[in-house]
Amino acid sequence: MESLTKAKQAGAKIAILGEMFVCTYDHQSFRREAEPLPALGLLPPYESQSIARRLSDAARSLDMFIIGGSVPESSGQSDRLYNTSLIFDNRGVLVGKYRKCHLFDVNITKNSHGDGVSFKESHTFAPGDLPPCVVETPWGFDVGVGICFDVRFPEFAISLRKISARTKLIVFPSAFNMTTGPMHWTLLAKARALDTQAFIAMASTARSSNTSDFQVWGHSLVVSPYGDLLGELDENAGVLIQEIDLSVADKIRQEIPLMQQRRADLYVP
Amino acid sequence: MESLTKAKQAGAKIAILGEMFVCTYDHQSFRREAEPLPALGLLPPYESQSIARRLSDAARSLDMFIIGGSVPESSGQSDRLYNTSLIFDNRGVLVGKYRKCHLFDVNITKNSHGDGVSFKESHTFAPGDLPPCVVETPWGFDVGVGICFDVRFPEFAISLRKISARTKLIVFPSAFNMTTGPMHWTLLAKARALDTQAFIAMASTARSSNTSDFQVWGHSLVVSPYGDLLGELDENAGVLIQEIDLSVADKIRQEIPLMQQRRADLYVP
Repeated sequence: MESLTKAKQAGAKIAILGEMFVCTYDHQSFRREAEPLPALGLLPPYESQSIARRLSDAARSLDMFIIGGSVPESSGQSDRLYNTSLIFDNRGVLVGKYRKCHLFDVNITKNSHGDGVSFKESHTFAPGDLPPCVVETPWGFDVGVGICFDVRFPEFAISLRKISARTKLIVFPSAFNMTTGPMHWTLLAKARALDTQAFIAMASTARSSNTSDFQVWGHSLVVSPYGDLLGELDENAGVLIQEIDLSVADKIRQEIPLMQQRRADLYVP
Repeated sequence: MESLTKAKQAGAKIAILGEMFVCTYDHQSFRREAEPLPALGLLPPYESQSIARRLSDAARSLDMFIIGGSVPESSGQSDRLYNTSLIFDNRGVLVGKYRKCHLFDVNITKNSHGDGVSFKESHTFAPGDLPPCVVETPWGFDVGVGICFDVRFPEFAISLRKISARTKLIVFPSAFNMTTGPMHWTLLAKARALDTQAFIAMASTARSSNTSDFQVWGHSLVVSPYGDLLGELDENAGVLIQEIDLSVADKIRQEIPLMQQRRADLYVP
């Protein structure tokens, strides 16, 4: 909440939190923190102390869009959870809900430097079943939302652009790790920026001093539609304030009209 | 031919030439150099002095696969040409033919540094109508082929991977320019490497000292399936010899099984 206030004071209109910002990144914590999440719209009054209520209140009181990172959602229908992002507009209305659809199931064996990561999100989470999520803003552009591992799938990011030509910002609440972070974090952000000709914001939780096996890479960043790195944090907790000039997206889309040049007739589905 | 011999002497099994390696990059040259190209298979005897014959002879005599960059193909059916790549196996048989399907139609206005590029390939070329091209090799893997601007379309590169799980090398005969080269050449190679978990080889023609408006960026390079730059030339004519370890592609595909994790059910077609 302190960070959100700081962002607002710096003039932010949209704030993006990290993946699973409510807990550390492990299965036990996911289960412990899981709660049911409300439907789109104004929150019902019984949502008093929920994470949704707290995000909604913050968005309304700060008059700011909040892309609420992601939280563990209990579906109620099984013991599997979803990795879900809630998006609130500046009136506190829940305008978007997205469930991570590409789960982080990887097994990178440790190399001689001790780098390696093995994790199976599908142990706890069910893969998202909601359509890709694009929300409108009052500022003449739309925001697409993915979560972390989703960034590895260009068709996903391009879908967010296909849903609306006004998608000029795509955000990925994330928590990369000490192996794939240095390898691919920045590169993937730049790749998706070129593919979609949109600004890409990757917002990570911070690295913690705990001894968990899963150490977070951090390094929240924003990349321009040309693939230029505009701003980046380090591994520590912090607030990255980044102004974006939407005309830059318009410019590259005119210069290199990728979306009109696609050859869906030839791609293998 | 000298370069091909040099590659062979260094142990190369596959040689890749640049885009439009037979001429400078302008519409007049494309028209002047255009010729009809043969069908797949052994070349008919009447192909005596053609570019196809010369490439076939080189492949056979050097016992080497040759991905013949690209050449202007006269279709015979209209005055529009194709930007076409011919792929010969080490017996000199034409085993693949690919017509560039995303034409380079861009208009990047000059900035204060004088950088900018405006070109309309569709002025001379018709967009390719052949399916994405993957050729088998005798070494346990397949090679996918795209041409230059095709590299901006992840669905195209991923199609080459979908056509065959054995596609572990994707080559792009290319000719980027002095504007998009420094901006995006290396980044696009790395992006497509991560997307397809294949080696990416971008082979460019060299920069020339002519005064043409279209100056070629050069910088032929090879990137690993992890997105690491393995080798790169500068802007001058040269031969890049790069050994690739195919097990690296197998390794990352096991560690991060992207092709099994796709969510075609959710992507917008």
